Amino acid sequence: MTLASGARSIGGNGIEVVAFDGDDTLWHSESHFVDAHARFVALVAPYVDGDPTVIDERVVATERANLAIYGYGAKAFTLSLIESAIDLTAGRVTSGEIAAILDLGKRLLDQPVELLEGVDEVVARLDDDGYRLIVVTKGDLFHQESKVAGSGLADRFARVEIVSEKDVATYRRVMGEAGVAPENFLMIGNSVRSDILPVVELGGHAAHLPYVYTWELEHVPDADAERMGFHELTSIRQLPELLDRLSG
Amino acid sequence: MTLASGARSIGGNGIEVVAFDGDDTLWHSESHFVDAHARFVALVAPYVDGDPTVIDERVVATERANLAIYGYGAKAFTLSLIESAIDLTAGRVTSGEIAAILDLGKRLLDQPVELLEGVDEVVARLDDDGYRLIVVTKGDLFHQESKVAGSGLADRFARVEIVSEKDVATYRRVMGEAGVAPENFLMIGNSVRSDILPVVELGGHAAHLPYVYTWELEHVPDADAERMGFHELTSIRQLPELLDRLSG
Repeated sequence: MTLASGARSIGGNGIEVVAFDGDDTLWHSESHFVDAHARFVALVAPYVDGDPTVIDERVVATERANLAIYGYGAKAFTLSLIESAIDLTAGRVTSGEIAAILDLGKRLLDQPVELLEGVDEVVARLDDDGYRLIVVTKGDLFHQESKVAGSGLADRFARVEIVSEKDVATYRRVMGEAGVAPENFLMIGNSVRSDILPVVELGGHAAHLPYVYTWELEHVPDADAERMGFHELTSIRQLPELLDRLSG
Repeated sequence: MTLASGARSIGGNGIEVVAFDGDDTLWHSESHFVDAHARFVALVAPYVDGDPTVIDERVVATERANLAIYGYGAKAFTLSLIESAIDLTAGRVTSGEIAAILDLGKRLLDQPVELLEGVDEVVARLDDDGYRLIVVTKGDLFHQESKVAGSGLADRFARVEIVSEKDVATYRRVMGEAGVAPENFLMIGNSVRSDILPVVELGGHAAHLPYVYTWELEHVPDADAERMGFHELTSIRQLPELLDRLSG
């Protein structure tokens, strides 16, 4: 691997590459899945006796069981919803309701990209300041590419890495491809499991920026920034100052 | 972009990087889709009056209409089959039949990788001869990664590029990332549209190796190797000789 020299030349401890998670860090995503899930619940609830939380439980269990075969993303979600609907209704779900679930999935895939508050300005500022910016995002290749294209930010990013799993091996490869040492790399994202812990394990910097919703399969109980060695932000607008501090 | 020097050092006209398509070039794929399609036809045929070719036509039309939203791959295919089943049966398809379509899709995704005849030896020989080998494949990120992992060939490839569309822009990026000039790049694949024409347009070399089946959406009528400037092979075993000739 040839180490490319970055546009920004700084000392050993400075951040050279800032990597952004996509979904729920740059743009809204989980809120759309939450909406789709609510519509799904409304569709199947009439078939389910008693406590409607069995619907949530069945969906999460189906998604978890299918993860190794479907991977992540809205098409995987749609297929798992159809399977859940058949199970939850003991086969009584109608083809019209299945068609409605297909439409929920298409609506998710077709949703215009909505950037999170502050993203536009912060990404522009860091790019102008000479940081090399990349996106490291998980999920459906086709859908993620559409979102990057629809974000209006594509020109700000030196690389877009769409990966099937965000683990230590993935981040090692991403850092290698970008030609950056872990100590000069910072990842920012909303998922402690996918955006933070593997980067910290490699000796990189990581900033956790929680989103209003966390998907059950990304949830890490008892995440503790100080003990686990990452930075906790409440707004992406705090990122430039964190980078200054790390380069200081 | 830093140009990495290849393991093989050859003159201006020699091939340095050999890029392989995955599906139907390295391993069987379309034959599994053809099987799945046949099972689908058997499921819905009882609902369809008259000529069963309306089933094929409806599936292709649905896949084509969904391409811009679903992209390629087995999950996209499964979702399009469910939609087609609802349409073709005027909503009379049962949830048990929808469940059978979900199973067809899972079976496609779970299919063990079967290498095509000669692939194993040719890939090993070219790697041992010092060519830099890469995979450029389209479709579902998660599924394609599983197939590379399951092929037993992963260690032979310097890079695996899973892309959402194989067009001129994609191949320009792939050559850039690999640090190779078009005249030192050869792509081999079964699809004239996706593996051959964009590479030839960039000034690269391309070898067409037809597979027994061609998906309707990849079909190029009147493809002519001589007129269009690519090489036509009948077996991957002819590839080493072609590379020798191009380097001679």
